[in-house]
Amino acid sequence: MSTTTNRLWRLAVRPDGMIKQSDFNLVSEPVPALQEGQLRIRNVYLSLDPAMRGWLIDRPSYVPPVQIGEIMRGLAVGVVEESMHPKFAKGDTVQGMFGWQERVVSNGEGVTKLPASPLPLTANLGLFGLAGMTSYFGLLDVGQPKEGETLLVSGAAGSVGSLVGQIGKIKGLRVVGIAGSDDKCEWLVNELGFDAAVNYKKGDLRTQLKEACPKGVDVYFENVGGEILDTVLSVMNPFGRVVVCGLISQYNATEKVPGPYNFAMVISKRLRIQGFIATDFGSRVKEMINDYAQWYMAGKLKYRVDVVQGLEAAPTAINKLFDGSNTGKLIVQVSEV
Amino acid sequence: MSTTTNRLWRLAVRPDGMIKQSDFNLVSEPVPALQEGQLRIRNVYLSLDPAMRGWLIDRPSYVPPVQIGEIMRGLAVGVVEESMHPKFAKGDTVQGMFGWQERVVSNGEGVTKLPASPLPLTANLGLFGLAGMTSYFGLLDVGQPKEGETLLVSGAAGSVGSLVGQIGKIKGLRVVGIAGSDDKCEWLVNELGFDAAVNYKKGDLRTQLKEACPKGVDVYFENVGGEILDTVLSVMNPFGRVVVCGLISQYNATEKVPGPYNFAMVISKRLRIQGFIATDFGSRVKEMINDYAQWYMAGKLKYRVDVVQGLEAAPTAINKLFDGSNTGKLIVQVSEV
Repeated sequence: MSTTTNRLWRLAVRPDGMIKQSDFNLVSEPVPALQEGQLRIRNVYLSLDPAMRGWLIDRPSYVPPVQIGEIMRGLAVGVVEESMHPKFAKGDTVQGMFGWQERVVSNGEGVTKLPASPLPLTANLGLFGLAGMTSYFGLLDVGQPKEGETLLVSGAAGSVGSLVGQIGKIKGLRVVGIAGSDDKCEWLVNELGFDAAVNYKKGDLRTQLKEACPKGVDVYFENVGGEILDTVLSVMNPFGRVVVCGLISQYNATEKVPGPYNFAMVISKRLRIQGFIATDFGSRVKEMINDYAQWYMAGKLKYRVDVVQGLEAAPTAINKLFDGSNTGKLIVQVSEV
Repeated sequence: MSTTTNRLWRLAVRPDGMIKQSDFNLVSEPVPALQEGQLRIRNVYLSLDPAMRGWLIDRPSYVPPVQIGEIMRGLAVGVVEESMHPKFAKGDTVQGMFGWQERVVSNGEGVTKLPASPLPLTANLGLFGLAGMTSYFGLLDVGQPKEGETLLVSGAAGSVGSLVGQIGKIKGLRVVGIAGSDDKCEWLVNELGFDAAVNYKKGDLRTQLKEACPKGVDVYFENVGGEILDTVLSVMNPFGRVVVCGLISQYNATEKVPGPYNFAMVISKRLRIQGFIATDFGSRVKEMINDYAQWYMAGKLKYRVDVVQGLEAAPTAINKLFDGSNTGKLIVQVSEV
């Protein structure tokens, strides 16, 4: 890859259902020459996140949708290749919304210099990135768990779910995961220390949950939605909290999706159902990084990444988030570290 | 009515859809003679509340369902006719879950002596009763409104909704009501001081809400559910709170009712949806009574009752709560004060 050209994915058409490669155009464009106050970043890792599906829908939301013809938005870590910006030097490791491309020329806005760390670079997209923020602030701030309570996590083998469960264990909760295969369930219990895990594809979910959560569920960390949410509502304890992180089962829906049929339980059980966006907690990232680094170095927290090779793979790889085939934080590697 | 007989309503069959008179049996039974430690209460007013519909369904909930053959449960105020209980004297005014009957013999458990008050006796079922508790703690504790925010209330002309809106005004909010007739809307604005009211039966609700709530909705006090909830979710502001007090549109449903189709907005708007039961706040009733009495005496708060005459009327009168025909707190008068 030459330093003067850039390959990038532009949105071609809005996806209908699952994302297809043909929804994007892979194009080659020259990189503009640097001007005073600018820096050029070579992307190393791109983060693939469920929220990206929502950014492709033309509707008002917490961020504007990606427009047709625009470069696909996405969080990335990269290395500064050249700098005419006073705050960045060649070789700096940086993070920002650099998008699905090999290189980006920036005026430094929204570019964060990453401090040296004993953790691998991918930690900045996972543990210290959106997945880490989502897990940490979602569970601790929104969920308000108390020691001894039961925490149930759906999408438990995903990058967020696996962290949420481990933080739950560190905080003294009984932790139960919901995942879509026996392998994933085994990994949750044997490797990550979950107290139990249930395979929602196998047998009656409610019966399985009743068994895995004999004292009911106090905090439910929701990544999935749909029938699973409905079933979980029926096993929630009074004054339970439902942290709505994601509703991945409906992100590719082409028709209107009904809310939970057991919605009336919100009253009878005095439930609190609360949504959040990880980046709302941006001002408190330092506190999170400290905790994570400490837990990770102490061996209390394991973190798995699923690295797919090559920028070309991005539009097809993202569907791994929706068909249940990834385990751990999904990342595209664009160039060598 | 003789002091030795009692007429009462026993549940005959579980209602299917709207309550029918034939779902209950009106029977006459002798009143047992008082024993040491007991008192006999003559019911004066019975409270009819939407939650009662739920008590008739055979399912686990925050209170056990009324069983077939049992006296219909209900809050009431009455007068002590005779007492062999050290804490109660003949003539005392008392309140408790005395049920749909003329008289009750009690050991004093769950019987509260009512203090003298400049307010009418019905205030104990409305302002100081379930409706009052629901409005006060639901809005202030669950809703956490801040001065200057916009409060939207559905079922606004009901006993709870009309109080919620007035408390909102006292607390410095912009208050908008949703009701089912122009008369009700007029009453809300002209008599109770709501800033605006919209008739959901007339024209597009979303357009009307957009106009009535130009700065969006920060707190939504939900009494109704169904399509109204869905529409309101679409006009909620980020970090808005949905206080789920009731879902009256679905209490008589005979099929499964889907939750809100706009449920995913919980995430994009970071909403908090929270249910509650007024009686959970029982320990703080004194604080509430003080506020209400003060507001009422200062003319800041109006309160309307809809009194239906005669114990016979109870099973038919309760449907006024579900067909939208009552305005203000629905009460059955069983005997003279």
